[in-house]
Amino acid sequence: MGNCLVAQSGGPTAVINATVAGVVKANQLHPYYDKVYGGLNGIEGVLQERFVDLTNMSDEENRILRQTPASALGSCRYKLKRDNTADFEKLFEIFDRYDIETLFYTGGNDSMDTVAALSQYAKDHGIEGHRFVGCPKTVDNDLMLTDHCPGFASAAKFIASTALQTWLDVNVYTRQEVFILETMGRDAGWLAASACLSGIVDLLILPEVPFEEEAFLEQVRKCIAEKNKCYIVISEGCKYADGSYLTAKNAKNDGFGHAILGGAGETLKNILLDAGVTQRAKVQDLSTAQRAFALCQSLTDVTESFQLGMSAHMRSTDGKFTGKMVAIKRKEGEAYDTDYIAVDADQVANYVKSFPSEWILPDYQGITEEAFAYLRPLISGTPVILYENGLPAYVKPYYQR
Amino acid sequence: MGNCLVAQSGGPTAVINATVAGVVKANQLHPYYDKVYGGLNGIEGVLQERFVDLTNMSDEENRILRQTPASALGSCRYKLKRDNTADFEKLFEIFDRYDIETLFYTGGNDSMDTVAALSQYAKDHGIEGHRFVGCPKTVDNDLMLTDHCPGFASAAKFIASTALQTWLDVNVYTRQEVFILETMGRDAGWLAASACLSGIVDLLILPEVPFEEEAFLEQVRKCIAEKNKCYIVISEGCKYADGSYLTAKNAKNDGFGHAILGGAGETLKNILLDAGVTQRAKVQDLSTAQRAFALCQSLTDVTESFQLGMSAHMRSTDGKFTGKMVAIKRKEGEAYDTDYIAVDADQVANYVKSFPSEWILPDYQGITEEAFAYLRPLISGTPVILYENGLPAYVKPYYQR
Repeated sequence: MGNCLVAQSGGPTAVINATVAGVVKANQLHPYYDKVYGGLNGIEGVLQERFVDLTNMSDEENRILRQTPASALGSCRYKLKRDNTADFEKLFEIFDRYDIETLFYTGGNDSMDTVAALSQYAKDHGIEGHRFVGCPKTVDNDLMLTDHCPGFASAAKFIASTALQTWLDVNVYTRQEVFILETMGRDAGWLAASACLSGIVDLLILPEVPFEEEAFLEQVRKCIAEKNKCYIVISEGCKYADGSYLTAKNAKNDGFGHAILGGAGETLKNILLDAGVTQRAKVQDLSTAQRAFALCQSLTDVTESFQLGMSAHMRSTDGKFTGKMVAIKRKEGEAYDTDYIAVDADQVANYVKSFPSEWILPDYQGITEEAFAYLRPLISGTPVILYENGLPAYVKPYYQR
Repeated sequence: MGNCLVAQSGGPTAVINATVAGVVKANQLHPYYDKVYGGLNGIEGVLQERFVDLTNMSDEENRILRQTPASALGSCRYKLKRDNTADFEKLFEIFDRYDIETLFYTGGNDSMDTVAALSQYAKDHGIEGHRFVGCPKTVDNDLMLTDHCPGFASAAKFIASTALQTWLDVNVYTRQEVFILETMGRDAGWLAASACLSGIVDLLILPEVPFEEEAFLEQVRKCIAEKNKCYIVISEGCKYADGSYLTAKNAKNDGFGHAILGGAGETLKNILLDAGVTQRAKVQDLSTAQRAFALCQSLTDVTESFQLGMSAHMRSTDGKFTGKMVAIKRKEGEAYDTDYIAVDADQVANYVKSFPSEWILPDYQGITEEAFAYLRPLISGTPVILYENGLPAYVKPYYQR
């Protein structure tokens, strides 16, 4: 038999490594591939033949890998352009040389595009014997055709926990307080909305609802008049009706042409101060911590991420399984349960799944019961975390070895 | 027998409620006082006779209270001025009317001043039958005469955990990265220094060392040249040699005449960008979360906070125990262990314990082995946290009931 290769792309999450751990473990349970290579720094490192051998990972390392946040194999933002024939030729040459039958690629939109592009290239050129399988991950939860994305729930749990705990802090004084919590999420409001799980959010600003300054200020005034406090959650990607970001002034681009967001909380604070609705406001921008805080892993999330990796491996033993992403489907019924299904990667790539508008209450008042019913099971359960000297044990990144 | 009153002051911590839980539990084990009142919003609420009865708190509530961050009784920044006779007269009138023998007051510098002032007033005016006992708490760890302060270690654990986990995130790309983590700590570097427990900090900026821009930039350049990354931790209170804060531009005052700090990370980022040592830098300001994140409680910390409350109660049954703060003394020897001791509150009030200069390495290189030996045991152990619907269970604040 040949070998397989697993690599990670895009922004990391608190459970992204569990998918890699799942692929590795599946191959130990059923050694279909002779070797499980880890590709360092995504497709960029694959092009440079930067591989590590994960085949014989110990069970202890596998377990600690599952609680290690961020991409242990390193990541990249390199986008395989479909007209860059040189890259494709080089990749297939490398796949042949290392006898790589299957590439498992974890990532978001752009990574699914890579999966689709490689699969299409092979088909167009009559190249056989290679399979390309996508594994979703993104804290933003904005991928199509999957009920949710591994990584989202743990970030949601961290956000809701932080909202709850900072709210307790914000309330201790009798004085007026306005607190602004800024979350990630890009153009989708999933992460910001998840803060509502804490039950303490007064006002919620999502990218899906055009921000109307006067209407919002009115809600803040009302809230302060009522209880002298106002706890606001704002998504980094919130926009005015004309489509410009609140943070437009600071906007730059990352390598993919995506705007670099962040700063929405500070911008909102200045709007509030300028309007005179409050004399003081605190901002907590959760920044990198929200996608890296594995101490807040949801047991549901880390389990699903691991199982999804196993499912991807097991499905890949069918010689025709290519150009697919393994997705999560929520079963019908009262109790939360899921199936793993296969969807076409090109149906996922380059689309964005927004937070459903019918789940958003008017006047920045938060989210509906349907939204709560969707979100609640995702953050349930807490894995047993292993510690070393008082801090979470972690696997030394493979790209640093 | 008479009653006792417990109240909380100053900025909250992740374990401040454990001291209250300790006082309550001690009185259940030995009902020396008929009633344990909780005073809402510190001395400010006591002056308004805003009391709750905590005497018969259930064991379950006691346990959840210990994992509830922020002051469950509410807090205040009201400073009892020694020349404000009206306040003192009113307080003693209230103590008499509610038959309050002992006031337990948790807080920092200013709260210890309140304890000392009330005790002194009673002495000066020949008032007998009232005792005033301070219980230290502050994430800043800057109180004299105690080895450390309850609340510090849990914040330190959160900071070190976040440093470790965000560092893993920061390293996933091959590109150059500068990451700046900003911590609280006011004029003392304890919290910032504790980030070094993660083992990943490249450069550390403490308030105890005058900040020299050029010398620091040189270190950043060196670090980037060496590994293309630089992880910097900066304390909110860092200053130039002339004593002005890095954040001086934004400085305001709180009610106590203390500068409102914060923003040191952003300021440093701009210094780095302006100097051209890097093209990009990310800032994570831990803000309120670092003192509120009870999911990162250190077991050592929460246990000590609880035991300190019990010790305060038990000592107060000696009719002469007043004007004292219960402090923590580290025992000699290899294994970490502590004694609870009594110190004079007026020896604590209005002093600041800085991070020892002999524990600071030159050139922003972090801290010495002695510092690690001091810090390491404080963050050890993780309590079992009770959850409800995927989020940490908490006690509804008494000031909201």
